[in-house]
Amino acid sequence: MKSYTHIQSEMLRKKSFLCVGLDPDPGKMPSEYKESKTPLFDFCHDIVRWTFSYAVAFKINVAFFESHGPAGWQQLEKLISIIPDENLIILDAKRADIGNTSDQYAKYFFDTLQVDAVTLHPYMGKDSLDPFFKYPGKWAVILALTSNPGSADLELQAMLTGELLYQRVLKLYGSDGTEQFVMFVCGATHPSLFQDIRNICPNHFLLVPGVGAQGGDLHETIKAGKNAAGGLLINVSRGICYPKITTQFKSDVIAQAAYYQQEMAPYF
Amino acid sequence: MKSYTHIQSEMLRKKSFLCVGLDPDPGKMPSEYKESKTPLFDFCHDIVRWTFSYAVAFKINVAFFESHGPAGWQQLEKLISIIPDENLIILDAKRADIGNTSDQYAKYFFDTLQVDAVTLHPYMGKDSLDPFFKYPGKWAVILALTSNPGSADLELQAMLTGELLYQRVLKLYGSDGTEQFVMFVCGATHPSLFQDIRNICPNHFLLVPGVGAQGGDLHETIKAGKNAAGGLLINVSRGICYPKITTQFKSDVIAQAAYYQQEMAPYF
Repeated sequence: MKSYTHIQSEMLRKKSFLCVGLDPDPGKMPSEYKESKTPLFDFCHDIVRWTFSYAVAFKINVAFFESHGPAGWQQLEKLISIIPDENLIILDAKRADIGNTSDQYAKYFFDTLQVDAVTLHPYMGKDSLDPFFKYPGKWAVILALTSNPGSADLELQAMLTGELLYQRVLKLYGSDGTEQFVMFVCGATHPSLFQDIRNICPNHFLLVPGVGAQGGDLHETIKAGKNAAGGLLINVSRGICYPKITTQFKSDVIAQAAYYQQEMAPYF
Repeated sequence: MKSYTHIQSEMLRKKSFLCVGLDPDPGKMPSEYKESKTPLFDFCHDIVRWTFSYAVAFKINVAFFESHGPAGWQQLEKLISIIPDENLIILDAKRADIGNTSDQYAKYFFDTLQVDAVTLHPYMGKDSLDPFFKYPGKWAVILALTSNPGSADLELQAMLTGELLYQRVLKLYGSDGTEQFVMFVCGATHPSLFQDIRNICPNHFLLVPGVGAQGGDLHETIKAGKNAAGGLLINVSRGICYPKITTQFKSDVIAQAAYYQQEMAPYF
């Protein structure tokens, strides 16, 4: 149970907007992990142990577990169980389906896996996401303006009303009160649009990918997206898990997490 | 490897547009399955054995396996292995993410699980689906106009260009030549819009949910959506797997599958 005010107070306590993204790719891990029977878990376990005190949240990219079949899901379950209670657990699954199917996903993610939040596609409309809104203390993290170049194909297209599609998504799912259980994904690769986003959704938490490997600027993002409650969960995946320096993997990971937290601290 | 002409010839041979949807819900199965250690597999295995000769395709709803954790995925893998080669296997997973993550999903679904097709969300734009387009003989089944009431929230909203959003999706992903590897999901609950869909995409296969439990009419759908190649995969899930009559489960399932195929036959 991670309420709005709980997340807000954790951000303030840690002086951090940091969400560490866990994308365990055996092809990129230091070689010692590859010899393990549970390389995905072992790798992420280390990243979590080394970075949790700098981070408010962890975002687990399901694809990197699912792609290993049942053994991948076993490691995902184990990973969830070792993440400290002080961190929000976001399952980056990007699901959404008709009601009776979304019910199945919501029940599994929230009741069985017991994650705090799950990422969702908005395209199929409100009834496709309703099942995710019914779990007290759980969060639906809805894609609005993603960080990839393809965001121009539909998300940034204009509607007849003059709004862009992503703005329509923010309005559809972001009415007053939903900030207690809805967050939006808004990419750091679109800093000039954060003011528009904040005009529509002044109070919602935004999960912000795209800092680091994808080119988004940390400080521009914070200045444009921060609100009184903090309001930002800034995700860094490759920049922390696969540091470019790597003289010592452990110390480089910690140095990267610490770097991001220290850059964020002056904004509190 | 199920090419456009292969699917077309199978439809003609069987005089059928039928796709049987596999949504194994332990709460709805006959009681004998519930005592099995692998109820999802056993139930679907029977449905497949009893209906494959009437069906062109099977659509496996991943949520109903994923919700059972690693044991669910094991049953999903086993199910895929027993579906006859004459049937197209569509994994109804509704995925899509940034490129390096979509890569992971595509590799797992097409290389490891070896399904023929996977359903995908269009919202994040072309680069999010590109990884699924790179597998020769495999199919990307993109959500355009879904069968749920929530389709009115975004999919049926008008763009500044005058098109509706789902029409923009059809144009974005449906240019000439893509009918060889792209299909679109278009719900039977919108029969009046099939003419628009066929004006934009005359040649693409359409995967059509919404007949049966959701209220779509079979004959209206076929008349409005059929093209020279057949062009329709009409999905029936609950109407076949959970027949209302149930004097004898096996004979009722077969009767339902046969009913749908016989209703379709005159259109060939």
